[in-house]
Amino acid sequence: MKQPKLTLVGAGPGDPDLISVKGIKAIAAADVVLFDALIHPDLLKYASGEKIYVGKRAGQPSKTQDEINQLIVDRALSKGHVVRLKGGDPFIFGRGLEEKEYAEIFNIDVDVIPGISSSTGLPGLEGVSLTQRGVNHGFWVLTATASDGNLTDEFYDAAKSNATVVTLMGVRKLNRLTQVYKDLGKSDLPVMIIQNGSLPYQRSFLGTVENINEKFKDFVEDGPGIIVFGDTVRSHPEFVTEQAKTYLNNNYYQN
Amino acid sequence: MKQPKLTLVGAGPGDPDLISVKGIKAIAAADVVLFDALIHPDLLKYASGEKIYVGKRAGQPSKTQDEINQLIVDRALSKGHVVRLKGGDPFIFGRGLEEKEYAEIFNIDVDVIPGISSSTGLPGLEGVSLTQRGVNHGFWVLTATASDGNLTDEFYDAAKSNATVVTLMGVRKLNRLTQVYKDLGKSDLPVMIIQNGSLPYQRSFLGTVENINEKFKDFVEDGPGIIVFGDTVRSHPEFVTEQAKTYLNNNYYQN
Repeated sequence: MKQPKLTLVGAGPGDPDLISVKGIKAIAAADVVLFDALIHPDLLKYASGEKIYVGKRAGQPSKTQDEINQLIVDRALSKGHVVRLKGGDPFIFGRGLEEKEYAEIFNIDVDVIPGISSSTGLPGLEGVSLTQRGVNHGFWVLTATASDGNLTDEFYDAAKSNATVVTLMGVRKLNRLTQVYKDLGKSDLPVMIIQNGSLPYQRSFLGTVENINEKFKDFVEDGPGIIVFGDTVRSHPEFVTEQAKTYLNNNYYQN
Repeated sequence: MKQPKLTLVGAGPGDPDLISVKGIKAIAAADVVLFDALIHPDLLKYASGEKIYVGKRAGQPSKTQDEINQLIVDRALSKGHVVRLKGGDPFIFGRGLEEKEYAEIFNIDVDVIPGISSSTGLPGLEGVSLTQRGVNHGFWVLTATASDGNLTDEFYDAAKSNATVVTLMGVRKLNRLTQVYKDLGKSDLPVMIIQNGSLPYQRSFLGTVENINEKFKDFVEDGPGIIVFGDTVRSHPEFVTEQAKTYLNNNYYQN
């Protein structure tokens, strides 16, 4: 009988080459891999054991967290080493802790292999640094919406702060989020939305609190994305180009 | 003549297996690798081109950012593909943006390969989830100290917030940081310090705002570490064990 074990593995933001070497070794060594909807199929090629999909499937309800917890424990006790493969980092909005704590009730050893969170890894792919000398001292990653559908108190605090603010799962509330910034007199603050980050069809939308809704409106139905609010977004090449154009317009073409 | 190119690569928090597959491919393909002091020597084994150390060396001044920028450009123009290998993520307190922007002045193409930031990846290795259902909605990563030596305004705001707060490079100011929390009446808030995260000699110190200075005082000279403030730290096994002991003491042993 093999020793029961659970390894929580962060798969990163999307590109299968953005998983860690350690993550791949765990997948290859696993007796069972449980994976979510957003896991890239190429990552499953490293697996030689059983592969179980636990994400949403069209027309069927997705497994509840309780069902996933139980499946992890059942497979660890019957098969040995279970890898739970999750998008991003397992401990950043990933509910990995719930899976760890449940497994530990059954005395199953748990390892964690961190991953690149979309929230921190994707802005750089667009040329935006979440921190920037002379601009800010940090960034705040949060969910903008509470389980009751209202905006979280933390989002109001974040909007007031000087931090670069990154929200996950907020694109459907974009209007309400920008309204909070407008009420604070921050209409000119740059905003960036990234969809399908790190994948070949990555798209970004650049604007300000004032005009981002207009720029984004045709795309909101296409699924999740991260939103970045902050002066650090001004380092995006599209902003730099716009600034150069404005400068040329003001200084040369108008003469 | 090879096409000049710069790839900024995040090496992750320390463990050489926590770099991404994409990062390793870039190191292997590079004509030149420029690396910092905290880069694990095993990562350089993937490199077949020139390797240049640009970190601090005992008894010698480290290279300035301007010197590194110029070295990147010189090598890209003379040798081709330069990989700039940086700890953590190149765009999180990494000054990667300055290197990117300088290279672009010389029309050098720049790619970015994100890495696992210590700030987000290490807490999970200690069993602490930066976000937790029913506890908080996000986390704030920041530098606590400004270039003038004072605490940043952002740190005061962060301490007031409900976010899990992660500071880098703050252990030498631990007394001042905890004083800010005390002044806010948050003496019981859990605190965790992680040193040498993800390496074999990883150490953590657990306590509260009230007692963490006492617990940590013998170790502060040993170098950098991240500090995590927040109720989410309560999920650390050491806290869970303490809670269990207190519960048993109160309910059984005292009878």
